[in-house]
Amino acid sequence: MGKLLIVGSVAFDAIETPFGKTGKILGGAAPFIGLAASQFKIESAIVSVVGEDFPQAYLDILADRDIDISGIEVVKGGKTFFWKGKYHNDLNSRDTLVTELNTMADFNPIVPDNFLDADVVMLGNLHPDIQMSVINQMKERPKLTILDTMNYWMDNAWTQLMEVVKKIDVITINDAEARQMTREYSLVRAAAKIQEMGPKYVVIKKGEHGALLFHDEHIFFAPALPLEEVFDPTGAGDTFAGGFSGYLTAAENISFESMKNAIIQGSNLASFCVEQFGTERMLKLQKHEVEARLMQFKELTQFNIELD
Amino acid sequence: MGKLLIVGSVAFDAIETPFGKTGKILGGAAPFIGLAASQFKIESAIVSVVGEDFPQAYLDILADRDIDISGIEVVKGGKTFFWKGKYHNDLNSRDTLVTELNTMADFNPIVPDNFLDADVVMLGNLHPDIQMSVINQMKERPKLTILDTMNYWMDNAWTQLMEVVKKIDVITINDAEARQMTREYSLVRAAAKIQEMGPKYVVIKKGEHGALLFHDEHIFFAPALPLEEVFDPTGAGDTFAGGFSGYLTAAENISFESMKNAIIQGSNLASFCVEQFGTERMLKLQKHEVEARLMQFKELTQFNIELD
Repeated sequence: MGKLLIVGSVAFDAIETPFGKTGKILGGAAPFIGLAASQFKIESAIVSVVGEDFPQAYLDILADRDIDISGIEVVKGGKTFFWKGKYHNDLNSRDTLVTELNTMADFNPIVPDNFLDADVVMLGNLHPDIQMSVINQMKERPKLTILDTMNYWMDNAWTQLMEVVKKIDVITINDAEARQMTREYSLVRAAAKIQEMGPKYVVIKKGEHGALLFHDEHIFFAPALPLEEVFDPTGAGDTFAGGFSGYLTAAENISFESMKNAIIQGSNLASFCVEQFGTERMLKLQKHEVEARLMQFKELTQFNIELD
Repeated sequence: MGKLLIVGSVAFDAIETPFGKTGKILGGAAPFIGLAASQFKIESAIVSVVGEDFPQAYLDILADRDIDISGIEVVKGGKTFFWKGKYHNDLNSRDTLVTELNTMADFNPIVPDNFLDADVVMLGNLHPDIQMSVINQMKERPKLTILDTMNYWMDNAWTQLMEVVKKIDVITINDAEARQMTREYSLVRAAAKIQEMGPKYVVIKKGEHGALLFHDEHIFFAPALPLEEVFDPTGAGDTFAGGFSGYLTAAENISFESMKNAIIQGSNLASFCVEQFGTERMLKLQKHEVEARLMQFKELTQFNIELD
């Protein structure tokens, strides 16, 4: 069984949308990645850090899904990373109201021994130095290393980010970030420039407008499933990354074809994530629901034109 | 051979983009629709109006492609509709610098006798009263009536627009207009409401983000082909409408399946239109180029996930 190593924040989120608000609930990139990846037949582990205030029940949620949580350090007397945000009416933008890094400020990731040979490493959005530390701990180069990052690190840790980018196989960023990273407006040109920086595969996320996969001259596009209602977009990008990396960990080989399927699987799982607050929907998700919606993705995009 | 009746503006356009600017060139909705539709084995006619200043060479361009131009009235002493616009750097928005309606202000459409039994009627973006006049002239209800419209008519001729909307089969509008028309942010809900207003098929154009087709519970999505460079977006929407309506005029039957192909054909032709100023690229377009790019559309969107 393939092994997936997930490095990312584990946090408290407090979310406000036009539909309601939550108190402190389970959040951070790693739980969303882990819950999505657990849909596939793989072994997975999370490397992260929390404070003593983090409920055992939240850790149990992850462990119950056979996610190895031995790499989640619990800092005695420490407080868990906390993010509070409020979405605007169209749910396409949000204001961050609170960011308390707490224990995350001194996060020193330690990869558990039995995941030093992971097949796939999913580096969630974190300081590039943390991501590099994990890359350097691996016994040998994994089959696939996937990087998520954001504009904040481009602004504040460009040199370190570029060092990490050289060592990875896949980068997932959004369209604005791809443009910022390359100063190219055309996503086709931006993806070509990013491939020159290191990663052979570039995934550009466009939120409600879907995701693009670039590799050499090849391009693949997966739409987001049109939904009657988006309830809470929090975690959609991480759920996408979890479906993507989870599928590829279970896949027999890494190719453009398997990447295409991984993009669809990621988009599919993300379409559930946004239906309820935080991880709520992902915790209840049933296999038959996932499969039914995959069929909807097929219907949404597949056609058969014959040329004369 | 199927007959397509095209009703729309024939105009002078003057365009400025970050890449350059033009003088007065061939523009208006109908030429773009007609040129795209002429890629298919159909008979077509344009109903429109121009002034005496309109060059015979421009009319010849259309006639050379077997488009019946007997329905284009040339008003003695009149001036042709003129539009001048300037695109912003990202090419996603533009400022209209000049709109001179001229002869278009009193346009009274007369459908040529031999097109009173057209199979498909493509109503380009015009005052709803003009669109209704054409609908009323038809001998019997066409197999398919397709309506293009815009926010301007929602603001200024809502009642008349709603009368037209009741009598058509397909509406093509952009996402902002679909939201304005229904006061629903979700495009899924907006499309459902629009179907209640009349049209069985709703096509929502999202520009560089592709197009959605809605019909009952079915949804189909076609992306826009990711391009290295968009040179001039003018006419892309009309070219889409031309490919869409042209394909369906040539198709043996009207079904969700043939609509899907029509959306792809429209998107495909639109991807050429934006490569040069105005109609330039469409005038040079070769069949083998169209087919090669259709293959790119397949590669871009087709995948094969097997469920276990």
